[in-house]
Amino acid sequence: MAKPKKQPRPKAETPKGFRDYFGAEVTQRTEMLRQIAGVYHRYGFDALESSAVETVEALGKFLPDVDRPNEGVFAWQEGAEEDKGDWLALRYDLTAPLARVYAQHRNDLPTPYRRYAMGPVWRNEKPGPGRYRQFYQCDADTVGSGSMAADAEICAMLADTLEAVGMPRGDYLIRVNNRKVLNGVLEVIGLPEGEDRAAVLRTIDKFDKVGEAGVRELLGKGRLDASGAYIDGVGLAPEQAEPVVQFLLAGKTVDEKLDTLGQKTLGEIDPDDPELHSIISMILASKRGYRAGSGLDVSASNALRNAATLHVLRELVCNSVVGSEGVNELEEIVVLLEAQGYDSSRIVIDPSVVRGLGYYTGPVYEAELTFEIFDEKGRKRQFGSVAGGGRYDDLVKRFTGQAVPATGISIGVDRLLAALREKGRITAHDQGPVVVTVMDRDRMADYQAMVAELRNAGIRAEVYLGNPKNFGNQLKYADRRHSPVAVIEGGDEKERGVVQIKDLILGAQIAESATLEEWKERPSQFEVPRTDLIAKVREILDAQAGGQD
Amino acid sequence: MAKPKKQPRPKAETPKGFRDYFGAEVTQRTEMLRQIAGVYHRYGFDALESSAVETVEALGKFLPDVDRPNEGVFAWQEGAEEDKGDWLALRYDLTAPLARVYAQHRNDLPTPYRRYAMGPVWRNEKPGPGRYRQFYQCDADTVGSGSMAADAEICAMLADTLEAVGMPRGDYLIRVNNRKVLNGVLEVIGLPEGEDRAAVLRTIDKFDKVGEAGVRELLGKGRLDASGAYIDGVGLAPEQAEPVVQFLLAGKTVDEKLDTLGQKTLGEIDPDDPELHSIISMILASKRGYRAGSGLDVSASNALRNAATLHVLRELVCNSVVGSEGVNELEEIVVLLEAQGYDSSRIVIDPSVVRGLGYYTGPVYEAELTFEIFDEKGRKRQFGSVAGGGRYDDLVKRFTGQAVPATGISIGVDRLLAALREKGRITAHDQGPVVVTVMDRDRMADYQAMVAELRNAGIRAEVYLGNPKNFGNQLKYADRRHSPVAVIEGGDEKERGVVQIKDLILGAQIAESATLEEWKERPSQFEVPRTDLIAKVREILDAQAGGQD
Repeated sequence: MAKPKKQPRPKAETPKGFRDYFGAEVTQRTEMLRQIAGVYHRYGFDALESSAVETVEALGKFLPDVDRPNEGVFAWQEGAEEDKGDWLALRYDLTAPLARVYAQHRNDLPTPYRRYAMGPVWRNEKPGPGRYRQFYQCDADTVGSGSMAADAEICAMLADTLEAVGMPRGDYLIRVNNRKVLNGVLEVIGLPEGEDRAAVLRTIDKFDKVGEAGVRELLGKGRLDASGAYIDGVGLAPEQAEPVVQFLLAGKTVDEKLDTLGQKTLGEIDPDDPELHSIISMILASKRGYRAGSGLDVSASNALRNAATLHVLRELVCNSVVGSEGVNELEEIVVLLEAQGYDSSRIVIDPSVVRGLGYYTGPVYEAELTFEIFDEKGRKRQFGSVAGGGRYDDLVKRFTGQAVPATGISIGVDRLLAALREKGRITAHDQGPVVVTVMDRDRMADYQAMVAELRNAGIRAEVYLGNPKNFGNQLKYADRRHSPVAVIEGGDEKERGVVQIKDLILGAQIAESATLEEWKERPSQFEVPRTDLIAKVREILDAQAGGQD
Repeated sequence: MAKPKKQPRPKAETPKGFRDYFGAEVTQRTEMLRQIAGVYHRYGFDALESSAVETVEALGKFLPDVDRPNEGVFAWQEGAEEDKGDWLALRYDLTAPLARVYAQHRNDLPTPYRRYAMGPVWRNEKPGPGRYRQFYQCDADTVGSGSMAADAEICAMLADTLEAVGMPRGDYLIRVNNRKVLNGVLEVIGLPEGEDRAAVLRTIDKFDKVGEAGVRELLGKGRLDASGAYIDGVGLAPEQAEPVVQFLLAGKTVDEKLDTLGQKTLGEIDPDDPELHSIISMILASKRGYRAGSGLDVSASNALRNAATLHVLRELVCNSVVGSEGVNELEEIVVLLEAQGYDSSRIVIDPSVVRGLGYYTGPVYEAELTFEIFDEKGRKRQFGSVAGGGRYDDLVKRFTGQAVPATGISIGVDRLLAALREKGRITAHDQGPVVVTVMDRDRMADYQAMVAELRNAGIRAEVYLGNPKNFGNQLKYADRRHSPVAVIEGGDEKERGVVQIKDLILGAQIAESATLEEWKERPSQFEVPRTDLIAKVREILDAQAGGQD
């Protein structure tokens, strides 16, 4: 033990950027992860919990925007001063460890290997408000299948997962893109592979912040940002930038055109309308989703949306081989998803999806919550992304030298929990315990027997274990614990074979709002025979639960 | 990506002493922790998940037997080379972080604060067989109550927890001791506080290994151990060592005497038998647990066991103040537990319990599994300890300067899981998914629709996503996945509106044991209309589940 006089006391503080989670924060997350695991399991995914500690070598360097020491990870060197060994680090995500696990155990694992993983990851980043250096991820990946069916399955599973945890259909959208399509567009405009392409990717990723005009400027010469600093552009000529912008906006363009069509009957549509031309020709050429004799209703529009976007993308990539491959892959995903009943109202092709991580090689996806919240400045905005992923066909190759295709998703657990709270899907705190108060210190054994009875009946309950002298403190404690009921048995009650049962929820309501007359009619404290303790407590708990509905 | 020619490939290996957990290893642990959390919650304990990373300063140095660098923890220094900050470390248990959390948040927490926590902890120790540097703990503690009712509650909860996860009554024993009793005995024999007392504690802790004679030698001059090395003793005179040995054996002595008494009717007992004297006088003086007119039956023996041990201990500590306080505390725990129905067949006083950690100040407890297993050398032995804890009244004081009493338990999650496997309470692997095979690559959408139907019916299912060319590989895959059923739909089946359903469990049984005749009578493959897919699969799954009972 520290001797206060000789040695300063340690500070009782989490390290900067770390935090603790209490009560319902923990149980709600556990429950949500259990629901997610249930969906993943039903899809045939197996659990994996890899070591939290990896060699730095095995982790690799795939974190974006890293300019801090240790490359964004928490790392240390094994062994004593005189006998230093490997550098070890805490994992920064669950994907890099999966590549290591698969390479290490591939002979014992099924191929394809579907696995899910959930747990904390650590980033050695500058902490900020709401930005922690330890947070939860919840991943599902399929290793060893290059089939687009694997990507389609991940997207379908993500939609099912969001609904399973309580996010209603219509409040989320899975947005899908393919890295190859942009590469096709860049090939068409004559931009070679390398840094310029990466710069285009980064520019597109800023669309949410800077808008269409901003992206145009940044693809060209550059722009003045809000702080007054001049940001250099990629340096594309306007005729090079234009197809990139069209690519970026393809989803939005299709949405707007379908909206216009939705307001007209088929008879009213001018098939030669230049604005609508490409979409209309596509609709007329396609049989899928088109209902002869009726106007474009919502479900027809949903059925057409992805097909129309594919049509636009196909025109943009012209005859680029990689671009066409990307569009074909997207089409395959769309066809597989529609066969399972997932149309564009749930899973939509959207070229503005980029995903920061460098290792994606094909389809990328993102789950976005579309309902609006107020941000810290009181402005309305969409809740935004809660999950993302994509195909990374080269990660396992780092270890084995052999290409192993893989694709997967990562859910941001804390953001999804925040969204569910926002939607009122989870409550602020756990149900507190019934508190058996201590009126007579010497009869602790009686109170323990009482609480054992309650617990054996499946009721959350505890004896007050603090100093029982001040009865008011016991009730304050019960209040702090969100206790539904307090049980009181003084010497007088004991003698008469009764107990007092106090309905604390009703008591609080009465104290807050009721008039004296109501108070008399609905007492919140009851005297019952000791033998009726369990029955009466249960009755009150049931009534409270009913009142909350 | 690494370029294999320029840069060596990273090794696909967990760091030494770390491991990965697959499938059922993860889900079974998750399920067990869920059951444990259920019991803890019912007892009124609230969840806490503290940061995995703490400052080295906050963690303190409480690990026993540490002679490695970094004092047994994984630690690193914050910040860049030129701007070094705090030393951080991974937590080595869940108790030291609780003390920090309570000190940091005490104004927002209820007092007493009952909390549970579960998660990995890390030890920078030499790895060995079955000894890992990351493992799970599952703790429950009550901070802010000095009442023995808090300790009694922890013991009762531990018993309930073991039964809730599937350990039958009779296969476990919670053993309780109190540090103060030994201190009382040492006071009586005139041994001052300090290193000698610690040495006695370490010696008693070796009882399991060296036995009674070994302990006697080690308390005295020393002994030759099995390797031929001479181990120095504590140096007590024989008359000093004797009370210590009697203390250590008090539980065992009482057991033996009660066994003897159990074989006699009361009439047959000689009240002057010197061997039995102290126990008999105690029995005759006590009213608790004694049934007049009948012999000592098992339940009477159970009721007497703890009281008799307390009697022996009280004689050993004579008039030592601290010793008497310890015995009184133990008695209080016993009385409270018996009021709740926990007698010595579940929770027993046993002075041989020591618990290595230095910070315990009063009661200590240990959960032991008493059934026998074969060790790695084929010898029978008791399974042993799966949980331990005790009262540590000074840990929070390190931070705040104010004494805050606390007591709690830690369950060794991996050992408890191993015990449940040993008892056949949990199965070797999860139920595998139904595998929809791919006969025709172009009809992937059909197979996806089929699997979506199965999943929507709540059936774990997947489409084979590997290369479908070799059908044998698909069935091998299903086998590796422990799949119960395979679904097959070739072009011919598609045309006829049917599917083939293969019962893989039955198929394996037939292949293993049946004669050709039985094979014909019980086919393991069925052709059913496509519309009956779900019903037939469910029928087979139900039959398999029934067959496993």
